Amino acid sequence: MARTLVSTIIAAHSTGSPQEGEICKVRVDFAFANDITTPPAIQSFKAMGAEKVFDPLRCAVLPDHFTPNKDIASAEQAKKGKEFAQSQKMLYWEVGRVGVEHAFLPEQGYILPGDIVTGADSHTCTGGALGALSTGMGSTDLAAVWALGETWLRVPPTLRVDFVGERPGWVTGKDMILALLGRIGVQGARYMALEFGGEALSCLPMDDRFTIANMAVEAGGKAGIFVPDQTMLEYASKRASRRFTPLYPHAQASYLRRETIDVTNMEPVVALPHSPDNVKAVRACRPFHIHQVFIGSCTNGRFRDIEMAALLLEGKKVADNVRCIVIPASYEVYNQALEKGYIKIFADAGAVVCTPTCGPCLGGHMGILANGERCISTSNRNFVGRMGHSKSELILASPLVAAASAVTGKLTDPRDIATHEFFTRLEGK
Amino acid sequence: MARTLVSTIIAAHSTGSPQEGEICKVRVDFAFANDITTPPAIQSFKAMGAEKVFDPLRCAVLPDHFTPNKDIASAEQAKKGKEFAQSQKMLYWEVGRVGVEHAFLPEQGYILPGDIVTGADSHTCTGGALGALSTGMGSTDLAAVWALGETWLRVPPTLRVDFVGERPGWVTGKDMILALLGRIGVQGARYMALEFGGEALSCLPMDDRFTIANMAVEAGGKAGIFVPDQTMLEYASKRASRRFTPLYPHAQASYLRRETIDVTNMEPVVALPHSPDNVKAVRACRPFHIHQVFIGSCTNGRFRDIEMAALLLEGKKVADNVRCIVIPASYEVYNQALEKGYIKIFADAGAVVCTPTCGPCLGGHMGILANGERCISTSNRNFVGRMGHSKSELILASPLVAAASAVTGKLTDPRDIATHEFFTRLEGK
Repeated sequence: MARTLVSTIIAAHSTGSPQEGEICKVRVDFAFANDITTPPAIQSFKAMGAEKVFDPLRCAVLPDHFTPNKDIASAEQAKKGKEFAQSQKMLYWEVGRVGVEHAFLPEQGYILPGDIVTGADSHTCTGGALGALSTGMGSTDLAAVWALGETWLRVPPTLRVDFVGERPGWVTGKDMILALLGRIGVQGARYMALEFGGEALSCLPMDDRFTIANMAVEAGGKAGIFVPDQTMLEYASKRASRRFTPLYPHAQASYLRRETIDVTNMEPVVALPHSPDNVKAVRACRPFHIHQVFIGSCTNGRFRDIEMAALLLEGKKVADNVRCIVIPASYEVYNQALEKGYIKIFADAGAVVCTPTCGPCLGGHMGILANGERCISTSNRNFVGRMGHSKSELILASPLVAAASAVTGKLTDPRDIATHEFFTRLEGK
Repeated sequence: MARTLVSTIIAAHSTGSPQEGEICKVRVDFAFANDITTPPAIQSFKAMGAEKVFDPLRCAVLPDHFTPNKDIASAEQAKKGKEFAQSQKMLYWEVGRVGVEHAFLPEQGYILPGDIVTGADSHTCTGGALGALSTGMGSTDLAAVWALGETWLRVPPTLRVDFVGERPGWVTGKDMILALLGRIGVQGARYMALEFGGEALSCLPMDDRFTIANMAVEAGGKAGIFVPDQTMLEYASKRASRRFTPLYPHAQASYLRRETIDVTNMEPVVALPHSPDNVKAVRACRPFHIHQVFIGSCTNGRFRDIEMAALLLEGKKVADNVRCIVIPASYEVYNQALEKGYIKIFADAGAVVCTPTCGPCLGGHMGILANGERCISTSNRNFVGRMGHSKSELILASPLVAAASAVTGKLTDPRDIATHEFFTRLEGK
């Protein structure tokens, strides 16, 4: 069988010639964990009798979930991770100089085309935007990778997704991945690799691609990998922390299934409570009243996300009684937003801007919901109780929909408060 | 007995002529609670059979302690306060448009010279910088004020404190109040009013005065009140939300005791663990290594505090492995800092900047300490476990000492890393 992209990457990291469905051992290029998943990984690492990580410059600990620490338990967690990283001379960055792991690591050139990357966090699939097999695992498996520099996996079948057509300015990466989720469902790619290609990607910014790759796991995917192109290679080359070799699928690769999504007539969409595949066009929904908007997370806290939200909010005010919480996903994004004046736009609008962290996405802190509260969030999951009380509700959306809704206080299509010129201007950015 | 300032204010709010030591009823000009103290106040309010607050424009709820909400419990608390405020048409500001109550209310002109103000928070004494009898009380008493517009109190004796001499640029309001605490101790003004005067105050900025008034309660004071002067009246006039009448002590007022503090040769000081009166000159301390610096709180999160810290950090970096958490105390301070480029200085230095909130001061969130961690904090209390683990340590300091220590990673006198010109420039601001 001619190899798909994921199969090609696996073969390049294996000593044998593993075929789809086979279990094999692979070399790992980079392995990381966060403040929550590091302490159990340390425990497993020690239980295995391991003493040193395989390569301290390919292993990292990133404090992002409950930082700045919200309580003693989270402070103890973060401290354990930091002390382990220091004792191993692993990569570690202190709060204020880091960000959400899945935003920070690609920016800093630690995830690169052709890589196999493992992280003790389910959204490790985000790195697929860089043509890497980047996949989440539990802390125990991650500990084994830290010890050995390798892991085992079953070569997944591939669901090839082609985005075609001409993308209007109001359609973002978030709308594209939500559209796919709406079509295939949260089990639609279970233990498959999603392989993203198609003509509509050629002018899709990297930040939108990260959003798409990030939510591969919401379809059950083992990974969501973009085929390398000029945009990706330029991004990677500028930032690479080491040499890399981009890999490609065979022209006649054998796909388990193919899906084609035409973006030409796509509208802004949302995932209604309580599943990421409960997807509807915004204009087909009732105008849900909201208590909070969250713009950030590993899904949509990158520069273009922050920029889209800022430009839409410019000169406008967040609706009375609505909290609008903006959390850039890394210090680099924060600093860029500061320089462009976007932080000022948020402040002037009455939005909250917090330091880079996962924030309320996982119900951690900085914006947890009370009973009966409803939030429009740019994050990735809207399961029951994900951001707080079991009777709160989450609507997943793009930064454009989120910002538009912050202004009106109810679920709003961005086209209803912005001009056609606004979207043209966005595309020029 | 010729009336002191506190006695004059009480008399002006009473129908009789209450004397020192007597219990009397007084009219209250403004009464507020925060996200923690509002829910029990609501409960008491209802238990009293009260239906309407005495004047919705003189009653306020401010969400500042656990906001943006860190968990479901804090989200429920905040929601209760918000809904009560809305149902009563009381003053309420949403997260992102507010700040720490004791910074925000004076800025917005709700605490004014000659006022009696009560707040369900111990640091309500901060308002004394505006020549008001501003004092903290429990939620039950506050509920009674909301219901009746009046409260009872015993007319406190007055400890008059005169600051004299010429203040060097490295001596801030924080050093002045710590020096007083070091001299009189945490019981030194128990149920007294501190009355602040003296020639050294004439060129002391309002922000430093708020710091001094804020910590009156650390000496056990019922209040800490500044005698009105031009600086105070200009500040109040620009911001006043209503008319006010400044009040003054009688020239021959009867003070229980007087203290005079000469600032001329004062050095930067700190309060070592675990009491605000454990005060020493920085240069007399060993160079304690630190894990965190916190610049913010109702004590030192105002514009001049943020400015001093920013100017000291400009072009420098926070030490490796030190977290430096900066939390402007209100959105006004945040916006001013943004415009002046100070947020950028912090970001460039590798500090965390968070949205206005109490932050880690009270052990709430955004920087809680783990076992064995040590923090230099510009806040007001360093009791055992105040900011986290019972085996963590807090050193209270000015923003200058805090920022200097962030750079070196150990307790540092700002004069050791800044030039004489730097302090001259500070004074020009």
